[in-house]
Amino acid sequence: MSADVVDRVTWNADGLAPAIIQQFDSHEVLMLGWMDAEALRRTLTEGRVTFWSRSRQEYWRKGDTSGHVQYVKGARLDCDGDTLLIAVDQVGAACHTGDHTCFDADDLAPTVGER
Amino acid sequence: MSADVVDRVTWNADGLAPAIIQQFDSHEVLMLGWMDAEALRRTLTEGRVTFWSRSRQEYWRKGDTSGHVQYVKGARLDCDGDTLLIAVDQVGAACHTGDHTCFDADDLAPTVGER
Repeated sequence: MSADVVDRVTWNADGLAPAIIQQFDSHEVLMLGWMDAEALRRTLTEGRVTFWSRSRQEYWRKGDTSGHVQYVKGARLDCDGDTLLIAVDQVGAACHTGDHTCFDADDLAPTVGER
Repeated sequence: MSADVVDRVTWNADGLAPAIIQQFDSHEVLMLGWMDAEALRRTLTEGRVTFWSRSRQEYWRKGDTSGHVQYVKGARLDCDGDTLLIAVDQVGAACHTGDHTCFDADDLAPTVGER
């Protein structure tokens, strides 16, 4: 990875960008986390996902405490350079609640639209 | 939809939450947009996705200009209540560049990790 990859990201006012985490084979969306330049640099070079924890104000390499490691399988930047999509192989549950994904629990039951 | 669905979201300092947009059948992640309470209310009740455009500072019902409508197929809130996952049926390209998704163009080519 060259340094300019990280420099190309448009960070928000807090120096962060949202990172969508997707299981590489099933394509399930597992969670959304936040990365700063250093978290992205680590994620792109270490084969493991590292976030910036906004609540704890520290780097958080997913799985170091829980064992629920995210192995990196791909990484993409969106068209306006401010959102990341990280493909991973998730070990165990992605969600701290023990749910498989962070979106399992709360169905908002919208009105469905049709073509 | 009851009003409390919208009230349950934890909005950021700008009154917004990120909304991950995913094709309901292929599970491709198409884009990430931003919603305020009114955009979410419209999205949950109209069968069409409405965002808040941060650059234009106005509501933006996807497809009204481009024809690239997003029909709502599902909506979920994550475990800490600050991120939305919207399942849609995308008409045409999701990206304003004409790409199928906003993540097609820029592969960051990370180091891959293995279990």
